[in-house]
Amino acid sequence: MSHGSTGSEPSEGDLRKTGLALKHDREWDYELDRIVSAVNERDASTVGLQFPEGLKRRGPAVADDLRSLLGDDVHVMISGQPCYGACDLDTYLMRRTDVFVHFGHSPMKESEKIIYVPLFSNVDVTPIMEETIDELPEEDVGLVTTAQHMNRFEEMRSWLEERDYTVHTRRGDERLTHEGQVLGCNYASADIDADQILYVGGGKFHPLGLAMEHPDKRVVIADPVNNVVTVADTEKFMKQRYGAVHRAMDADRWGVVFCTKIGQGRWEVATDIVENNDDAYLITMDEVTPDRLRNFDFDAFVNTGCPRITTDDGPQFHKPMLTPGEYEIAVGNEPLESLSFDTFHGTW
Amino acid sequence: MSHGSTGSEPSEGDLRKTGLALKHDREWDYELDRIVSAVNERDASTVGLQFPEGLKRRGPAVADDLRSLLGDDVHVMISGQPCYGACDLDTYLMRRTDVFVHFGHSPMKESEKIIYVPLFSNVDVTPIMEETIDELPEEDVGLVTTAQHMNRFEEMRSWLEERDYTVHTRRGDERLTHEGQVLGCNYASADIDADQILYVGGGKFHPLGLAMEHPDKRVVIADPVNNVVTVADTEKFMKQRYGAVHRAMDADRWGVVFCTKIGQGRWEVATDIVENNDDAYLITMDEVTPDRLRNFDFDAFVNTGCPRITTDDGPQFHKPMLTPGEYEIAVGNEPLESLSFDTFHGTW
Repeated sequence: MSHGSTGSEPSEGDLRKTGLALKHDREWDYELDRIVSAVNERDASTVGLQFPEGLKRRGPAVADDLRSLLGDDVHVMISGQPCYGACDLDTYLMRRTDVFVHFGHSPMKESEKIIYVPLFSNVDVTPIMEETIDELPEEDVGLVTTAQHMNRFEEMRSWLEERDYTVHTRRGDERLTHEGQVLGCNYASADIDADQILYVGGGKFHPLGLAMEHPDKRVVIADPVNNVVTVADTEKFMKQRYGAVHRAMDADRWGVVFCTKIGQGRWEVATDIVENNDDAYLITMDEVTPDRLRNFDFDAFVNTGCPRITTDDGPQFHKPMLTPGEYEIAVGNEPLESLSFDTFHGTW
Repeated sequence: MSHGSTGSEPSEGDLRKTGLALKHDREWDYELDRIVSAVNERDASTVGLQFPEGLKRRGPAVADDLRSLLGDDVHVMISGQPCYGACDLDTYLMRRTDVFVHFGHSPMKESEKIIYVPLFSNVDVTPIMEETIDELPEEDVGLVTTAQHMNRFEEMRSWLEERDYTVHTRRGDERLTHEGQVLGCNYASADIDADQILYVGGGKFHPLGLAMEHPDKRVVIADPVNNVVTVADTEKFMKQRYGAVHRAMDADRWGVVFCTKIGQGRWEVATDIVENNDDAYLITMDEVTPDRLRNFDFDAFVNTGCPRITTDDGPQFHKPMLTPGEYEIAVGNEPLESLSFDTFHGTW
């Protein structure tokens, strides 16, 4: 097997290292016809559009195209709220528009009101998969990917089967739309009977979570966006987490964050902690940021919202920031060995 | 008249240059008895507390004191959302708690649900007023202050009257609770028949807005917090605004921000702009920040939310950010001479 073109210059149409920041609108299918049909069917007078951060700059152009297809009496509005997933719907705009379009993520929960437009990547996945063969020595292999590459999932599976792999896939739980899909907070689709898992997709965000959640499995990353093959290494990540837990062991006063985002609330987890610890205080907020928590005089924080803010952004907070499971270790309710990745299940 | 102790070292209990970041909790009266009465009267099981940014670090101590006064079955929660005024209620927490306490601002709108605890400053105001005499040569003087010093308003008035001033005061409009009160976005209480206005209060935020709104009046600042007397000078401020308007004149595409905060929405202002300009797009958000707008590819922005974000923080945005009035100048609907301060009226 040859190790291909990882070092060459990107050419026109080459999506390497561009992530979501693509040059041409034609790279994405915004499914405007589907939106227009819904507007007409529902006789809608207001349409709300929500884009994830990397695609917000496309908002005006998409709004333009929509306005040219709709009557002058239909008002198009764009959400300016941060958006990091299907868990993160702009409920303010959603409640105030007749049709609400959420771009870039697959549905976490179907709704009459919401149109989910997934925005599938058109990047070719098999060239980089070719380079994973040496890293996948066993016959059994799990296969997972993200919403962006879901349109090529059957192609991935066939490609592996043609090379005599036994491919294990599963849909995970109701938080996930598709078989083989992973989210930053949910890797239930990798609960399969194989010791090696092939992740096909851009970046290390998802495979690092996957490897944390499944420390017994080898996670091979085929990244068709950056055109690299690597094996997920969670060592730095784990050290950072153990460090946070150790520093929090001395905490006298705890701030317990309840996230108000529609798909990130774990009310019982948050209130259980507060009810069982007189030195714990419940704080409610939507965006959980270092700036917002810096205003509070706590020794440590527990974040019951998005676990990736806790684990990935943890070092940016002025005080130790733990997941609910890590909190139980820090206060002595659980042994250090119980440390595990915090995952999210269910919808809302 | 002697010019006093502006340069000396602060001593114990001296509030100079400390603003809201005071050392001792006893400096503020959190009116816990009033909160406890309301909880008991309403048989409340949940209490939400909201503090402005500078007082958030007091949150846990106030929650502690409250918890010791209330039964174990009453749950106290603290808002972690940013809060910059009575216009900025945490509606999520308010809707989900039986009693909602908003600290640090006077009521913008009375409500059964909300308890407003104003947190009056205990700083002495007359020593610094003494030093304003030379700056107030005329007999007629307007008097204004902020919510924090409202407890001393009659003392200020008497002090001036004893020195033979004719003191002009007024309540302004329904956005304001008290006679003589100003907000960062509303100076209707200074619509009085005097060419000189004495502002008694901390910082330059309010008097600069006051001088912008009333360019024909001389605004003298008696700052008992920083212990200085100055005269408001809007020149830099005005230059910055003219600069922003000029840069925005070349804009092809406009982002029109509608702020979703309960007391900051001007829906008709926002939609009027969008309906009359094919190159304008409506964006909805709560916190209007440079980070959030950087994701959007517009040439200029109009902020129909808090005018102080536009005028004071304007230079921090990556593209020109205008008030609705400034927008009308930039697109040629109004002459440059019409440039004026953007004020907010009404409640919600």
